[in-house]
Amino acid sequence: MKIARPLRRLIEAFEKLPGIGPKTAQRLTYYLLHVPQAELEEFAKGLSSLKKDTVVCSICKNVSENDPCEICSDVHRDKETILVVEQPLDILAFEKTGKYFGSYHVLHGAINPLENIGPDEIFIEPLIQRLKKNGKTLKEIIIATNPTMEGEATSMYLNKKLKAQSSRIKISRLGMGVPTGADLEYSDETTLTQAIEGRRQI
Amino acid sequence: MKIARPLRRLIEAFEKLPGIGPKTAQRLTYYLLHVPQAELEEFAKGLSSLKKDTVVCSICKNVSENDPCEICSDVHRDKETILVVEQPLDILAFEKTGKYFGSYHVLHGAINPLENIGPDEIFIEPLIQRLKKNGKTLKEIIIATNPTMEGEATSMYLNKKLKAQSSRIKISRLGMGVPTGADLEYSDETTLTQAIEGRRQI
Repeated sequence: MKIARPLRRLIEAFEKLPGIGPKTAQRLTYYLLHVPQAELEEFAKGLSSLKKDTVVCSICKNVSENDPCEICSDVHRDKETILVVEQPLDILAFEKTGKYFGSYHVLHGAINPLENIGPDEIFIEPLIQRLKKNGKTLKEIIIATNPTMEGEATSMYLNKKLKAQSSRIKISRLGMGVPTGADLEYSDETTLTQAIEGRRQI
Repeated sequence: MKIARPLRRLIEAFEKLPGIGPKTAQRLTYYLLHVPQAELEEFAKGLSSLKKDTVVCSICKNVSENDPCEICSDVHRDKETILVVEQPLDILAFEKTGKYFGSYHVLHGAINPLENIGPDEIFIEPLIQRLKKNGKTLKEIIIATNPTMEGEATSMYLNKKLKAQSSRIKISRLGMGVPTGADLEYSDETTLTQAIEGRRQI
């Protein structure tokens, strides 16, 4: 294979990214040959400073430029509710709804025994500490882990741990059922069961 | 949108790549947060050195580390045949067949009047010069531009230009027809017409 080393090196770097196969990696690399050097430098700087210029917020564990993060330091946000998510990207999804004004907590993963990720590998302990510290002002903790095996296991573990800590605080789980725009005909049994169980009076 | 600037910057860089939308750009960026800093630096170095460490071969216009490129400087390669392609990536595809041992010429594009790409914007003139210089040793020029409108237009233009330059040299076009593994039922009319016209005695 007669492929120049600088090209090969970049192809390999792209290949390591999730969802990018060898063909796409090649296409992206050859595409970048036509991009101005200044833009390549910008991209390179973005990569090398990604982790250097960001910190994990000491309160909610979100990835941010400052500590505490923008959300935790925002006085207009309701500190009585904490919404617990698996990944920082999940915060974005909730922020886009424009309907949630409480604070967050990022676990940075979910309990997954098959991959040796136990409760101590993710940020569960800092959440317990947060509950201990702000037990008086906190009113509700919404568990918003993914509706997957791992997310459910994490949710159950969290529920048990948090209830053991404080019986006063309300612990809730994200509503489950059929998503907007879905076709009931193609919905799976578990989702429909959850939708029936979670029905609301109108 | 509460998204840290270093993250936003990298998301924007990824979004500029072809075939990568905002969601994928976000996913890739957040994924990179879990990658060791050394690997990020490696990726960054790959990007900034991509164009600095490569040159366009003065003979065949392929992207290479050295000038002339590995293929042009390989004494074992047949210099009597030139296969003309649109992009450097096309060379890889032909090299993978293991059946072509001649040399190449990369046009770096195809004639496309709609995008203001005329014959002077791509490396057609260097091919003519190559023909003039090596007119005696050259035996065949295989035009392997893509079987698209632009590729066909380029092929026709090249054919005319090259024939005007030398009537002795054989000019050929890549064989067209049904690809291996295709289902005839779903083949389009143009492909089938080409396949009938290009039939071979067995």
